[in-house]
Amino acid sequence: MISRNPGIAHLKAGYLFPEIAKRRAAFAKEHPEAKIISLGVGNTTEPILPHINRGLMEAARRLGTVEGYSGYSDEGLESLRERISQVFYHGQFTPSEIFISDGAKCDIGRLQLLFGARTEVAVQDPSYPVYVDGSVLIGAAGPWSGTGYQGIRYLPCTAANGYFPDLSLLPEKGLFYFCSPNNPTGATATREQLGALVSAARQKGTLIVFDAAYSEYIRNSALPKSIFEIPEARTCAIEVNSFSKSAGFTGVRLGWTVVPQELTYGGGEKVNADWGRVCGTIFNGASNIAQGGGLAALEPEGLKEMRELTDFYLGNAKLIRSALQGLGISCVGGDESPYIWAHFPGRDSWEVFSEILERCQVVTTPGSGFGPAGQSFIRFSAFGHRPAVEEACERLSHLS
Amino acid sequence: MISRNPGIAHLKAGYLFPEIAKRRAAFAKEHPEAKIISLGVGNTTEPILPHINRGLMEAARRLGTVEGYSGYSDEGLESLRERISQVFYHGQFTPSEIFISDGAKCDIGRLQLLFGARTEVAVQDPSYPVYVDGSVLIGAAGPWSGTGYQGIRYLPCTAANGYFPDLSLLPEKGLFYFCSPNNPTGATATREQLGALVSAARQKGTLIVFDAAYSEYIRNSALPKSIFEIPEARTCAIEVNSFSKSAGFTGVRLGWTVVPQELTYGGGEKVNADWGRVCGTIFNGASNIAQGGGLAALEPEGLKEMRELTDFYLGNAKLIRSALQGLGISCVGGDESPYIWAHFPGRDSWEVFSEILERCQVVTTPGSGFGPAGQSFIRFSAFGHRPAVEEACERLSHLS
Repeated sequence: MISRNPGIAHLKAGYLFPEIAKRRAAFAKEHPEAKIISLGVGNTTEPILPHINRGLMEAARRLGTVEGYSGYSDEGLESLRERISQVFYHGQFTPSEIFISDGAKCDIGRLQLLFGARTEVAVQDPSYPVYVDGSVLIGAAGPWSGTGYQGIRYLPCTAANGYFPDLSLLPEKGLFYFCSPNNPTGATATREQLGALVSAARQKGTLIVFDAAYSEYIRNSALPKSIFEIPEARTCAIEVNSFSKSAGFTGVRLGWTVVPQELTYGGGEKVNADWGRVCGTIFNGASNIAQGGGLAALEPEGLKEMRELTDFYLGNAKLIRSALQGLGISCVGGDESPYIWAHFPGRDSWEVFSEILERCQVVTTPGSGFGPAGQSFIRFSAFGHRPAVEEACERLSHLS
Repeated sequence: MISRNPGIAHLKAGYLFPEIAKRRAAFAKEHPEAKIISLGVGNTTEPILPHINRGLMEAARRLGTVEGYSGYSDEGLESLRERISQVFYHGQFTPSEIFISDGAKCDIGRLQLLFGARTEVAVQDPSYPVYVDGSVLIGAAGPWSGTGYQGIRYLPCTAANGYFPDLSLLPEKGLFYFCSPNNPTGATATREQLGALVSAARQKGTLIVFDAAYSEYIRNSALPKSIFEIPEARTCAIEVNSFSKSAGFTGVRLGWTVVPQELTYGGGEKVNADWGRVCGTIFNGASNIAQGGGLAALEPEGLKEMRELTDFYLGNAKLIRSALQGLGISCVGGDESPYIWAHFPGRDSWEVFSEILERCQVVTTPGSGFGPAGQSFIRFSAFGHRPAVEEACERLSHLS
């Protein structure tokens, strides 16, 4: 029979979150009486708010009418692309630079096709797994070597450097995935830090894939929500973003990617044209229903609802952080992001994961799943109903 | 700056359909008075029928409620996977063998990651472009060489062989994309032909990716709708399918892929497990709203509506075929599929495309865009409102 893509063999056992689900299911089977609370996966839990929900229902209804029916939307509704530019980028992008997708993770998977297997890939360490796992699948990284995948450059982001990497480690003419507010650490880069990043990337010919999926959680108005608040980023960055965490669209599936017209490869070809070609070839556009919801989310009432929703999750984050700090556990994040990054010095992440699951019946995410520098950390997610989060905080006191 | 994936440079100018859209737009600009009718892209045009549409609206409404809210659905709702197995496969698959997607084209894009760049790829010639273009992107095929991409094995499907390929040409331990009812020729394989295909694939260690996106257009009950009507296919085939053309979901985005548990690579690893890993890594599941629509489509009333909708498009196909035959143009397809494959002997497809656009203001698809053996053919798509199709048929008489 046909051979397996060697990249798949290189991947470790399971993608982080299915692995957690498996361990949770095993625990539930052994302890059928346990009322497990999840502060693990970053999966939203609150209903979609009324104005945005009406946008979804109305878009669904229109598909049943002769006037309102629509088929393939390819790169997305022009009206939505225009509105995204206005709301998030002060109108600095034309619709041709904004591509509507079914979510940031899916676009990151496709983005790897722009550069292929010969690319040097660097990530913040810790980081969201798809950057690394996707690179392994496409052959841009090799097998696991004990502390990381061969060929991936891990740039440690730890307490010691304020969770911002040493930019001298950026690869020459490579790819650098950068996420702010960060998943999992919650660290949010300052304007000065992003300016330094862009400047270093331009010097080294590095392309930045800026993951802004949590930008709507930023409350400190001095902090940039987009890499494109640094004007020079137009020549060295792609930005991915999503309605998942801001509008509760994890199950609706809607995101976007910004590829400026100025962005070129070393050979001078335009990345924007290639991105259109890649999406046109292996993607067929986001659901028109989801796009109707996205349009509603970007109307004034929808923007208010997104603020309300993210405020709610930030409220959860505050409770979790306080509970952990009350136990003397050192942690960061949770102020401009829905993640709290808690340190358990000297301990193995999966061991702490198991302890919390067994003693508190609370599911978390082991930090080591996000990269070597995540060892001894646990990520707590602030997505949950308020009573469940309060109950989880109460149970965490069993750890003391 | 970073280098471009050499696979992108290898791709010809544009993906077929954006290229057609560009030429159509150029014509419209020159002839602003022209009322262009499209029989080009296979994009559905009729409203979603009431029962299925209620399923979509209800799923959207539920996302606004505490009880009905849901986030990531990963491999898809278990109820939908079960129902697909019952409706399309006589219950022969467990939900673990059926993966819900956002469409067949998107899944074919991801499927290539299972096998990687070293795979020998064969296609029916002509064939739907994503098989070839996706292979070029992933590096499994090389640059264009005048009549095809290097490394792609084109298996001619022409009038001479009844549009069924010579199976002795199947690659050893390679990948073979097979589509029935076929896009673009409309040819539908018989049970004997599929049996021979499965038997040849098993002998040669070839994995078949069976594209069944048009299976609901089959009216002759002797013709198989699935490769899995041949039991031995479980060890040598993956099937992709979609609600796009049967329920009018091109803009809704919902499909599925069947990967039997028995299917293994040469090394014995299970393809099913890898497919879960690939989807878990770079995909986040289909929209829960689309899945609600899919469930409604598979209820008795929804099945009736799908039949009604496909009957309507088949009615269009009959009109187009009659109009062409009335002009003495030889054509096949259109009886078990929404495509008519018309022959213009000795002529260049793009030249015929231009002539039809200029003389009839009708957009079609040049057959050469589907592969070398498509030269001198034109694909007419039966998707359109009835009055537009009738008007297009009327205008086609200008060709005589």
